Amino acid sequence: MKYFFSYLAGLIDADGSIYIRLKKNNTHKFDYQIMPSVVIFQHKSHYRHLNLIKNQIGYGNIRKRNDNMLELVISKRDEIKKLLLSIKSFLIIKRKRADLMLKILRDLKKIETAEEFMHLLEKIDKFSTLNFSTNRKINAAVVGNHLRNKGILTP
Amino acid sequence: MKYFFSYLAGLIDADGSIYIRLKKNNTHKFDYQIMPSVVIFQHKSHYRHLNLIKNQIGYGNIRKRNDNMLELVISKRDEIKKLLLSIKSFLIIKRKRADLMLKILRDLKKIETAEEFMHLLEKIDKFSTLNFSTNRKINAAVVGNHLRNKGILTP
Repeated sequence: MKYFFSYLAGLIDADGSIYIRLKKNNTHKFDYQIMPSVVIFQHKSHYRHLNLIKNQIGYGNIRKRNDNMLELVISKRDEIKKLLLSIKSFLIIKRKRADLMLKILRDLKKIETAEEFMHLLEKIDKFSTLNFSTNRKINAAVVGNHLRNKGILTP
Repeated sequence: MKYFFSYLAGLIDADGSIYIRLKKNNTHKFDYQIMPSVVIFQHKSHYRHLNLIKNQIGYGNIRKRNDNMLELVISKRDEIKKLLLSIKSFLIIKRKRADLMLKILRDLKKIETAEEFMHLLEKIDKFSTLNFSTNRKINAAVVGNHLRNKGILTP
């Protein structure tokens, strides 16, 4: 299994993504939901192989995109944590990202106040600039404005 | 080192290429040269990491392209052979390709007649359709015509 995890580290270093999206969700305490993911991309012609990899991992879902690409998505927090802890020591390109993601997942559990939430979002902003996420529309500034407008966060 | 090779298998399964180019070269016996390569692609922002990987492999050259991409190229036949034999058992997506490349490298050594050369080029044609090489201009048909025109190959 350790060989598989080092294989997976190579695959994710090359064609994978470790990222966090923020999503408006009024049922959440601070109106925004933090959605972490680990994704592996492959051309649709490799469905069989990607499915094999998914089965070996033991979790995740394969999603078909409109552009002939497949995504193997792991989005449950405990599964992301398990996966990253298994491959982390083998990662070369994305190790720093994996560490930061694990740190953010730990911090997420402790959030109680709007100030703590904002502090975490600032960490997530920094995490996102580590990547090539240029079309990120919701960031700490956007959420901060929203929470100040609602009086949840003090100016 | 075995963990590194399984990591490398993941990296090559995702962002690598195992391919063969044919190149006109009049100093060669049959006027065309068979040029096999294993290449790992990375964005230029990962130069440091790619160099680390190169040093770990122990051979290969990093080439800067014009489109912000780097290529770690292994093109010496004995190095390709060594590399593929080390990672083959860990490959999931490109294992068939690695097997075929190793077979072609073995056959290459035995070529004596133009007919044997053509037979190998047909194998390489098949190998290339396994990939997405759509802009391949020199194939077995092109070389066959050339050798027939020169009277090296009987019609």
